This record gives sequence, structure tokens and C-alpha cells, in this order.
Amino acid sequence: MSQSVSPEVVIDRLSWRYATKKFDITKKIPDKIWDALEQSLVLAPSSFGLQPWKFFVVQNTELRTKLRASSWNQSQVTDASHLVVLARKLIIASADVERLANRIAKVREIPVAAINDYKNMMLGYVNNPPSGFDVGSWNAKQVYIAAGFFMSAAAMMGIDVCPMEGFSAADYDKALNLTEQGYTTSLVLAAGYRAEDDVSGTAKKVRYEKNEVLAYI
Amino acid sequence: MSQSVSPEVVIDRLSWRYATKKFDITKKIPDKIWDALEQSLVLAPSSFGLQPWKFFVVQNTELRTKLRASSWNQSQVTDASHLVVLARKLIIASADVERLANRIAKVREIPVAAINDYKNMMLGYVNNPPSGFDVGSWNAKQVYIAAGFFMSAAAMMGIDVCPMEGFSAADYDKALNLTEQGYTTSLVLAAGYRAEDDVSGTAKKVRYEKNEVLAYI
Repeated sequence: MSQSVSPEVVIDRLSWRYATKKFDITKKIPDKIWDALEQSLVLAPSSFGLQPWKFFVVQNTELRTKLRASSWNQSQVTDASHLVVLARKLIIASADVERLANRIAKVREIPVAAINDYKNMMLGYVNNPPSGFDVGSWNAKQVYIAAGFFMSAAAMMGIDVCPMEGFSAADYDKALNLTEQGYTTSLVLAAGYRAEDDVSGTAKKVRYEKNEVLAYI
Repeated sequence: MSQSVSPEVVIDRLSWRYATKKFDITKKIPDKIWDALEQSLVLAPSSFGLQPWKFFVVQNTELRTKLRASSWNQSQVTDASHLVVLARKLIIASADVERLANRIAKVREIPVAAINDYKNMMLGYVNNPPSGFDVGSWNAKQVYIAAGFFMSAAAMMGIDVCPMEGFSAADYDKALNLTEQGYTTSLVLAAGYRAEDDVSGTAKKVRYEKNEVLAYI
């Protein structure tokens, strides 16, 4: 197991990151770092461990050009080294619980019966959710945890990211055939290296004072 | 600026973390590390930079006992070194945009007029959101990014976290007087150190195979 990272480094790296508006089109993320970024998505936690998501890494340049047109023509979509579309499952049903229970049993080499209580608890929640429950919102929130993991891991490794909500989800879903697969687009992350002349890169980071967003009780 | 963290360390640290069910009640997070965890929340990105959130660090032990009762009696609420309640703003209105614009102007030492276009774009979005837009869901998603930043930063620094959705938000809102302040509880994070006998700590991490949750197009 690796040593922990120091608090100074964590703060430095998170202060270094910003929503990169202009990427250096010539620089590509090395495979080893990209693999770790993929792992940050795979390893992200989710409610009940259901992982109600799928991540689509768009490599096809024609497709990226098409998606850019569906994203207010933002250059990050085509110019960043990598583009990943974070999609959420459209529904969560008994089959998803069965799938997870089977996976737990397989990974931990135990019979499915050994996790029956956990499975039934999940089934109860999924089939009789609390009032006001919205599966779209629930799954989207989990996807945003994964986005947080990706952006944070990227910052640690010195990779720039632009998180994007400004796009037509319907267009993305169509271009990537997501609906047929049971998913819909939640968020898009462009990753790579900031262009030297990205004006956003030199602007001071804007956050409210800590005492405005954090309180002790 | 600190050196980047290696991909090996990032993967190791994220593999090390898990949703800690039993905390060592005797171990407290040192101030310097807790400060960095607070910064991971403060520095988390959000849509338009609006930071539609507030983070409540609950130190009062009686209050934590009360909140435990509103959280299916889960021991993490009282036993973890620190407990932070992540709340989202109930609404986003013109005043929030004004507040952010003023903050940008102050931090960057520019006149507010210099960011008029950005301000008007935000006002247009907030006052005429796209069809189907739900401010509760939008703000909650931003809060989950902050949660992702916190959990990720904790993992980097060797701090255990249990993210919790299993509680009565209404009870939390009441106990913390959140409604009056314009917030509601989204998510709770208990942070500290795993107990040696936490059975969850030795169970193998369960994730789907990468090719089931990630695809290249």
C-alpha cells in the first residue's frame, strides 16, 4: 500500500485545478495516467454499491465533432485529449439488485444466500421507494460522485479537466445510442492539458469565504 | 506548487477506501488533515461556480446522538471523529447570481460590469431554466461533486469515510434549523479511522468489470 498523500499536496493540487476552457490540442494523456482516471470512475462509490452508470470514452473524431455541435460549439469537446460521457441508468429495477447480489457473491466467493438480508433490503427500497423518490435524480447524483472522483484524481495527477453540463442530453443520447442501452447522458468531462493561452487558467479561483459555506454546530 | 501524485498512488488510495461501517471511537483526525478536508469541500467545482451548498460540521455530541436516531441508529453518526452534513440550497434565484457576480468581481479585482455577459447568461438560465429543470436535483448533484471531492481527498490522506443517504432529511433539517437558513440536507459524511474489527474493512471491494461500466466509442 502506498503512503498517504500530505494535506499540503491535496490542497495544492485542488487549488491548481480549474474548469479548463481551452486545451492544448497537441498534448495527449499517457496511457498509464488515463488508466488511473478510468479506475477513479470504476472505483467511485455509489448508493448500495449499485453503480447505476456507464462511462463512454469517445475516441471517434467525427463523433466528437458532432457532439461539439450539440454542446454550444465548445472547443473542449474536440480539443481535449480525452472526452468521457458519464451516463446514468434510466431505471433501477429488481434485475439490477439481482445483478449486484450475484456480483458480490462472485467477488467475495460466498453463496448469494449469504447476502440475502442485504439483497432484500435493496429490493424493498427499489420496489417501494420512499415518497418523492426520483430514480433519475438518484442515479444522477451517484454519477456526480464519480465525476468528483475523476476530477479529483485528475487534479492529483496534474491533468486538466473541464466538467460540462452545457449540452443537449437528447442529442448525446441519440449520437451514442444510449436510450437503447438503458442510459441517458448526465455529464461530460473533457480531460487533457490546458493551453498556455487559456485566459481562465490565470484568473484567480473564485470561492466564497469558508465561513460562508461551512459552519460548526 | 507540489509535484503531481503518481497514478499508482491514486489507484492504491482509491482501492484502499471503503464505506466504513465501524469507526475507532478513540481516534481523532488531526486539525491539519481536517482543514484539508474542509478545503476539499470549499474548492469543489459547481455549475456556473454557484456553490449552491453549505456544509455543517456537527461537533455537539448531544446533537450527534439525536441525529443518530434519525439515521437508522447507525453508529457512524456518533462514533466517527467528524460528522459533516452536506446541505443544498432550496432555491437558486437572481440574488444568488448577484452574490456570485459580486464575489467574482471582488476576488479578481475587476468591476462587476466586466462580467456582465456571464452574469446575464446565468440570470437567463436561472430565471428561464430549460424544460424539465429541477433546482433541487441540480443543486443536489453539485453537492455530490463536493462529496466526491471530500471522499477522494480523504482516501488520499488515509482518512476513512462513510457516505450516508440512510437518514430522515426532514429530521436533520429540523435538528440543524436548515429550512430557515434556506437549505436542506442532501448527504452525510462520517469521517475518521476504521475500527480494527470492522468486518466491512476486510471484505473484498465489489465493482463490476471495467468493460461492463466503461466503453470506447
